[in-house]
Amino acid sequence: MYRIKKNKGNKKKANYVRIAQEAGVSIATVSRILNNYPHVKHETVKKVIDSMNMLGFDTNEIVIKPKPKNSSLIIFNIPSLNNPFYSQIVNGAEAAATRHGYHILINESDINLWNFNHLLDVLKKFNVAGLIISNYLSSELLDKLNSTVPLVQCCEYNEDSDISYVSIDDTLASKRVMEYILSNNRRKIALINGPMHYKYAQHRLSGYLNALKNANIPIENNWIVNLPEIDYSMAVSACSHLLNLSNRPNAIFAISDVFAAATIKASSNVGLRIPQDLLVVGFDDVDIAIMTNPTITTVKQPKFQLGFRACELLIEKISDPNVALRKILLDVEFIIRESSVITSLIE
Amino acid sequence: MYRIKKNKGNKKKANYVRIAQEAGVSIATVSRILNNYPHVKHETVKKVIDSMNMLGFDTNEIVIKPKPKNSSLIIFNIPSLNNPFYSQIVNGAEAAATRHGYHILINESDINLWNFNHLLDVLKKFNVAGLIISNYLSSELLDKLNSTVPLVQCCEYNEDSDISYVSIDDTLASKRVMEYILSNNRRKIALINGPMHYKYAQHRLSGYLNALKNANIPIENNWIVNLPEIDYSMAVSACSHLLNLSNRPNAIFAISDVFAAATIKASSNVGLRIPQDLLVVGFDDVDIAIMTNPTITTVKQPKFQLGFRACELLIEKISDPNVALRKILLDVEFIIRESSVITSLIE
Repeated sequence: MYRIKKNKGNKKKANYVRIAQEAGVSIATVSRILNNYPHVKHETVKKVIDSMNMLGFDTNEIVIKPKPKNSSLIIFNIPSLNNPFYSQIVNGAEAAATRHGYHILINESDINLWNFNHLLDVLKKFNVAGLIISNYLSSELLDKLNSTVPLVQCCEYNEDSDISYVSIDDTLASKRVMEYILSNNRRKIALINGPMHYKYAQHRLSGYLNALKNANIPIENNWIVNLPEIDYSMAVSACSHLLNLSNRPNAIFAISDVFAAATIKASSNVGLRIPQDLLVVGFDDVDIAIMTNPTITTVKQPKFQLGFRACELLIEKISDPNVALRKILLDVEFIIRESSVITSLIE
Repeated sequence: MYRIKKNKGNKKKANYVRIAQEAGVSIATVSRILNNYPHVKHETVKKVIDSMNMLGFDTNEIVIKPKPKNSSLIIFNIPSLNNPFYSQIVNGAEAAATRHGYHILINESDINLWNFNHLLDVLKKFNVAGLIISNYLSSELLDKLNSTVPLVQCCEYNEDSDISYVSIDDTLASKRVMEYILSNNRRKIALINGPMHYKYAQHRLSGYLNALKNANIPIENNWIVNLPEIDYSMAVSACSHLLNLSNRPNAIFAISDVFAAATIKASSNVGLRIPQDLLVVGFDDVDIAIMTNPTITTVKQPKFQLGFRACELLIEKISDPNVALRKILLDVEFIIRESSVITSLIE
């Protein structure tokens, strides 16, 4: 007999798997119980303790804690307030929360290894009912959060974790954008991409590369631009550089409308006409896409729905920690505007 | 002898004034103590109780509560995530909070009478150290909040309350915009204004009206447009209507860059050239002001500083509830761009 909490690494994981199988619950549930997570039903805790006893594990350290006072506070983590993409997503979550008597407060942080503990601190210090996260995190960090409060992923998700998510199929959306651009007889297509630690950036790159491959177009490395954040001014500089290359592209797929707006500004600075000289497609469909001149052809994300459904999943998980894992991908729409169609043709 | 808590209205207020004078503290401090507000120093409570005893008030109901567990949670209330104006303000507050070991969570609500209790609920339920508010509230509602947690006003402020604030001088800024437009030989000036329950909307209107009066220009009511929220599409519709009037203006002062961008779109739709046919000035200096074509001449608000200083004031107030009332107005800058200057002249 030995204490499971003192076993580290792979051996610990193997034990979790055995216990989960024996008790007929998920590995995450076993982890939650062994970490004295407060949101597990008492009968589930009992089932796991029985199974552990049967398997010969020491269960003396497991405490069935009194249920803490119910909280109605949900925290919605977003990477940046400055990216207009998140406002409607949060609005969707707020609508779902209000429906169920919950309150939403927003945490703005682009989570990385050095500031992760700050968020964990917030969750531990304040009586938080649950967390919606729209940063991309490793399975380990997700597990840490998930063993502190119920957790759901929104927009960004880590496929390797067993945390439910609501998102879109970025690879498919990117492929569709590329097929549209190719069908407009442009083969010199640049990609203005965001930070590669985001799932969306990896998937949109992969859709871009697949489409080029299918069309037998060689990859031009100069035409794949990665920017470290969704920042307009930085993107204007990067696009100006791109458009001044001797072999400049004749189409741009920008993975954010903010970047597409920057492309339009850079084109205007160097005297290129859109779409005649440069066809531009954005992503998200935020207000900026109709503010620019020309307006921006873009992929419309179901922003309100992304937030609403993520919050509904979270509230389900708060009331039943053993609720099944859900992986929801919502449909996007393609909106054709002036940046890809010569205006006189559509007037 | 009578119980002060049972006296309502004016009589209650007169009593508060007497006690405050006797004890040498502010009326707000008396109110905090009589409402069992947790953040008052014990020696101050004692001083007030002594004064009340001297004046013949019953002090039996006043409890010196044990100090609650220190919280490091500051809530920043903003009216809307969709208005890009607030993102840098919150960033400023986050920087100040981090400096002092506090956490900021954002509450998005356009506070009005029917949803006020929702915010009050959040403050009461969660262990909140303080609140920064950027909605305009009546003195009564501000007092209710301020007797729940330490409170500071940011951007919007109610001059009648004794709650510290950090803001700008909107009347002066508006007057400067008008003088600039007038100096460009435009006398047919429209105002695209926001919701009139905001201090900024009232003050900018007043700066607009004063400038017209000083220039002996009669007011044209059709040219004063009030919109119920900072919404781009709504503003495009309103501006299109304005620009189709038989007596249309030749200059527009938009109280938000979002509205200025909408004016540019509406002008382009009806074939007006900016600035030749219509000079446009915005307000705030958000990214949108450099995304449009032409770019927008605007009043740059010190957004980061507004948030930073508001948060510093709040943290001071959290550590010393009797800190002096502060009324801080920061300077703005005027940024000239293409929407007011014919480009060939500045190139």
